[in-house]
Amino acid sequence: MSLPALKNDRLIKALLRQPTDTTPVWIMRQAGRYLPEYRATRQQAGSFLDLCKNKELACEVTLQPLRRFDLDAAILFSDILTIPDAMGLGLYFAEGEGPKFEHPLRNRADIDRLGAPDPSDSLRYVTDAVSLVRQELNGEVPLIGFSGSPWTLSTYMVEGGSSKEYRYIKGMMYENPAALHQLLSTLAQSVTAYLNAQIEAGAQAVMVFDTWGGVLSPRNYREFSLGYMQQIVAGLKREHEGQTIPVTLFTKGGSQWLEDIATSGCNALGLDWTIDIDGARARVGDKVALQGNLDPCVLYADAETIRSEVGDVITRFGNHPGHVFNLGHGIHQAVNPEHLKVLVDAVHEFGFDIRK
Amino acid sequence: MSLPALKNDRLIKALLRQPTDTTPVWIMRQAGRYLPEYRATRQQAGSFLDLCKNKELACEVTLQPLRRFDLDAAILFSDILTIPDAMGLGLYFAEGEGPKFEHPLRNRADIDRLGAPDPSDSLRYVTDAVSLVRQELNGEVPLIGFSGSPWTLSTYMVEGGSSKEYRYIKGMMYENPAALHQLLSTLAQSVTAYLNAQIEAGAQAVMVFDTWGGVLSPRNYREFSLGYMQQIVAGLKREHEGQTIPVTLFTKGGSQWLEDIATSGCNALGLDWTIDIDGARARVGDKVALQGNLDPCVLYADAETIRSEVGDVITRFGNHPGHVFNLGHGIHQAVNPEHLKVLVDAVHEFGFDIRK
Repeated sequence: MSLPALKNDRLIKALLRQPTDTTPVWIMRQAGRYLPEYRATRQQAGSFLDLCKNKELACEVTLQPLRRFDLDAAILFSDILTIPDAMGLGLYFAEGEGPKFEHPLRNRADIDRLGAPDPSDSLRYVTDAVSLVRQELNGEVPLIGFSGSPWTLSTYMVEGGSSKEYRYIKGMMYENPAALHQLLSTLAQSVTAYLNAQIEAGAQAVMVFDTWGGVLSPRNYREFSLGYMQQIVAGLKREHEGQTIPVTLFTKGGSQWLEDIATSGCNALGLDWTIDIDGARARVGDKVALQGNLDPCVLYADAETIRSEVGDVITRFGNHPGHVFNLGHGIHQAVNPEHLKVLVDAVHEFGFDIRK
Repeated sequence: MSLPALKNDRLIKALLRQPTDTTPVWIMRQAGRYLPEYRATRQQAGSFLDLCKNKELACEVTLQPLRRFDLDAAILFSDILTIPDAMGLGLYFAEGEGPKFEHPLRNRADIDRLGAPDPSDSLRYVTDAVSLVRQELNGEVPLIGFSGSPWTLSTYMVEGGSSKEYRYIKGMMYENPAALHQLLSTLAQSVTAYLNAQIEAGAQAVMVFDTWGGVLSPRNYREFSLGYMQQIVAGLKREHEGQTIPVTLFTKGGSQWLEDIATSGCNALGLDWTIDIDGARARVGDKVALQGNLDPCVLYADAETIRSEVGDVITRFGNHPGHVFNLGHGIHQAVNPEHLKVLVDAVHEFGFDIRK
């Protein structure tokens, strides 16, 4: 099955640090609860997981933000916890409480029992959705595939859900690091196979979300998070259908370690909003592209403030190739969608201007 | 009323970057739920707030950890939200949910109505507890007084409790910064008066906890958090009873901004565990003392691991004056108290060794 060629390649070019006519923009969680059409489809689907696992509806919500906003990429609608779910941990979402697992891992025996899931089997619903979205996009913009990082997945798998103190996972890290390394190794293999399956199904760029890497000490970050992301980067298909597949790593709270992340072999770094993007560029800009990094709360402000804050990020980055505009974290559900339109249009306007 | 002279002055000397025989150590939340004797006293008191407001019982729990461990300081048992409570916002603690306010601030009128509380009136229970603890300590170790930072207090006051997204406070920051500045200004005055009252009542060092400064962008951190901590530092009594009163600022998640914090006029910086203390010392060690910075989760590990991790922090800091050992955040309630004994004794042992 041949897939349509890409019409808007700003995202891919920027991730590869090639010149573009303006700054490309997409938004983490752009397909999400802030959109009334998303909430309608979600209701139709049933639970959040039902929506992830229904390829037609997952495709529909993936495309919804592109109908409203002049975005330069689609990102597959899915969850970061699909891999542990496929491993049999029993993912569920308690209303208002975030993700939980029925069978969290607590000891070495639990971990030894885990195998890397075959993406063509228990994760087939994801690759099917990728193929369908890619067809439906018809080459308008590229499709981004993604996964959680091994460390981030392991926090949920060992804690049994979200955590504030990371008691069990860090207890294991300090008391039984071999068990945690075993888990992370299985997860790194799983994530590599999963992202490669997404690439084969049509994902044109991939991103690894290391949402909780920032809760580690520098040494533990390198050993338990970054090391496994490096393994993944090394194992990914970096070319498909004759096109380069850029890889982005995003450690929330990882601004202190940008130099380390930039040497991982990835093409781009995601930045949260706790660092100035000009400072980040000065530190790593000759090695990787940068993606970010507006505070998501700026979208609660009025249009003038949003435009001014967008302009600040674009001006700080300056007239260089290698910037993908994004928020520093996912868009909040209480945001007015009209405010996102102001943001997206401002990115393109200021992005053109700065290249003059 | 004359107060006894100080026998163990390691903490004060280290905060002032003067030589000591070994590294002093105290632990954030050292009077807390991980201690069975604390839980017994808490049950006797009733609610958490009842315990804070009963000077005899607050004094008792302040002293409990000193009976078990060879700590170099006491820290007043209290809460960071005493000031907004005294302002009439109606602080309460929902079981398992953290602090909440009955009357959160949502608009300029709410903010304009606030006044700085008189510490000798509605916060009298705090200064009474300080005086009592100081008497009971009998000069064994110094007593640390503390407050939340204006920014951190404002997050709870505007959100109505803990927050993940900081929707209302950041909405105000971006949409109506003048209202937030008004609030922060009132809080800075209140915190200054409150800490000065603690100093007059007998606190021998003070610390400002900026627990949520790390959720800000660099520019907003300087404008909405650090700027007001600087005002407080400038307004504090830095000498009392002929003794210098050291001031420590601690922004959790603020490692990127250490240079800025070090120029605030404070004597010491608190560090969380996401930075190596040798790197932090290289950046600011000639200006301020450093307090920290072990990951609290190390206390879940065995004695050998705890000793090794303590040794790593002490070795990284090296044989220099100006280190106060602490965790990078409060001790967790599930920690075995025997593990803390291992930590405290290891700090003193390795602290002596490194000075040889």
